[in-house]
Amino acid sequence: MINRKLVLAARPQGLIKDSDFSLKEEDIRDLKSGECLIKTKFLSLAPVMKYYMIDGAGIEAPLHIGETMRGRGVGEVIKSSNPLYNEGDIVQGKFGWQEYVISDGAADKMLYKVPNNGLSPSTALGVLGMTGYTSYFGLYDVGKLKTGDNVLVSAAAGGVGSSIGSLAKIKSAKAIGLSSTDEKCQLLKTKLNYHDTINYKTENLDEKLSELFPDGIDLFFDNVGGEVLDTVLPHINRYARIVCCGRISTYSDKGLKTQNYSLKNWHMIGATRSRMEGFFIYDYEDRITEAYTNMSQWIKEGKLSYHEDIQEGLESMPQALNRLFEGKNVGKQLVKIS
Amino acid sequence: MINRKLVLAARPQGLIKDSDFSLKEEDIRDLKSGECLIKTKFLSLAPVMKYYMIDGAGIEAPLHIGETMRGRGVGEVIKSSNPLYNEGDIVQGKFGWQEYVISDGAADKMLYKVPNNGLSPSTALGVLGMTGYTSYFGLYDVGKLKTGDNVLVSAAAGGVGSSIGSLAKIKSAKAIGLSSTDEKCQLLKTKLNYHDTINYKTENLDEKLSELFPDGIDLFFDNVGGEVLDTVLPHINRYARIVCCGRISTYSDKGLKTQNYSLKNWHMIGATRSRMEGFFIYDYEDRITEAYTNMSQWIKEGKLSYHEDIQEGLESMPQALNRLFEGKNVGKQLVKIS
Repeated sequence: MINRKLVLAARPQGLIKDSDFSLKEEDIRDLKSGECLIKTKFLSLAPVMKYYMIDGAGIEAPLHIGETMRGRGVGEVIKSSNPLYNEGDIVQGKFGWQEYVISDGAADKMLYKVPNNGLSPSTALGVLGMTGYTSYFGLYDVGKLKTGDNVLVSAAAGGVGSSIGSLAKIKSAKAIGLSSTDEKCQLLKTKLNYHDTINYKTENLDEKLSELFPDGIDLFFDNVGGEVLDTVLPHINRYARIVCCGRISTYSDKGLKTQNYSLKNWHMIGATRSRMEGFFIYDYEDRITEAYTNMSQWIKEGKLSYHEDIQEGLESMPQALNRLFEGKNVGKQLVKIS
Repeated sequence: MINRKLVLAARPQGLIKDSDFSLKEEDIRDLKSGECLIKTKFLSLAPVMKYYMIDGAGIEAPLHIGETMRGRGVGEVIKSSNPLYNEGDIVQGKFGWQEYVISDGAADKMLYKVPNNGLSPSTALGVLGMTGYTSYFGLYDVGKLKTGDNVLVSAAAGGVGSSIGSLAKIKSAKAIGLSSTDEKCQLLKTKLNYHDTINYKTENLDEKLSELFPDGIDLFFDNVGGEVLDTVLPHINRYARIVCCGRISTYSDKGLKTQNYSLKNWHMIGATRSRMEGFFIYDYEDRITEAYTNMSQWIKEGKLSYHEDIQEGLESMPQALNRLFEGKNVGKQLVKIS
């Protein structure tokens, strides 16, 4: 049996090129006691993954050239010498960009069994995975959403943003989403429980914010940063909460600790007695069961909708990652591997 | 009997001019039932007061031309037809810039009796007044100070900053203060319980921060904003807290909602999972007794030190307010009226 994987060949300059990776084939070795062999079904894409490719990005140890690209996946256990994992189990964890994974279930892979809930296993990477949990803890815990809050979400049609409309509505709050195409805006309103949307590419964001938030913004769930954040700040209410979930507009090739946009309206935080806060989803690991239980129940009840954007084949991974930076993905970006 | 008071004559342009106010004299009218007459002893200065003079400043209804300038004071009840206030009582409240005040103790003046604690009544405007309570709630509640925290304070020798060294030390945390003169730096170390200081006018702030915070800054109590904040941000730790107490470096003549410095390093908030938060001391009014009780006890025990900068006479009020913007005050800026 042969495993195929993508290893880092070059540090990215601007958009990722296919040639930033090499496709490697290798024999799959025999399992040691305690290990299991997993066949990858889906791999997940998230903007932060570009940083794994960059030296000195500041979020996690960067990859060396030649290392398998990091990333989460979901797959099926096809062989096991670990009593905790049986053939046929669906599991998710830190697979890397490869078609087969050998894991002993230890912390480095953070292997979780995916409950048999009747949903596609892909949801374990999206709405019922770290992506959805980011929406959940970001909105409820960091953002401290309150009944009646007027919520704004940037990159609303992205993986994290696409759950926020529902999660806000469930708590009797109203979310308005920013997106870059009319098609995505339409989906946000018709399927993803957004109260309204703004196409920030074709509409005047500042004017639309005044129109749609006559009483100000109570909570801004920000996946974009930079100029969008700057335009939003003068519209925040007293005691507003700004959840710094991502800054995709300003991510640079130098990593997380540099960017190229200077914020004019930072003083609004102090002037309005507001709070701006970052977070890291793995800090909430001990509460994942709570999030899973609530969110899967809400999916069953039809209150929480989700949308997945699925490309095909290991070779499409680099361009699938680019889709996030080009605003092409609609909902959670995934690649189907098998 | 004659009252003298300063009324707004012109909106300020840059530094305040004496001619922005007119001195008015008026007969003191007879007291109605429930009122008392207070003779002002000290008046308090705080940067925010400049905004009262500016139309559209956004923090409180601006003064009209001809209105008595707002501000807190402490004084002695010299006549009373209110059973709650007796002749000889020391009270503090929203006196305005005048030598005598008539008050019925209602909410508009927020009249508090000053306990007879053996300290100068001036402390009721400083360390045991809204200024000191701002330090207390800003550091402990907004900043959530923890044992062992490495704390940085800007405008450390100012009214609010001058208590933070002690308040940090009391909780086994270490505060380093920024100030603009060696004289003030010296005072911070020898009297005001600061562990160390940086003269940001003569020393390289970025380099000194690297030197004095080898493990990063856990809590930044910021009274300055702008370029100082920007220089500090790359030095913050994970889960840092930035308390936005003031932005004196960037206050403009247009009011609280404009400023002229664009922040390059705003992204550090998200990148380090940190929190930046503003607050308003009057939101903590129901806990003033707690703050008073603790802080007066700490003063008795010699753990909390304070320093007052006292000018003389009602006419010196405009220039005393300027002193805050010129960094001339050492400790809490007050004016002795009688």
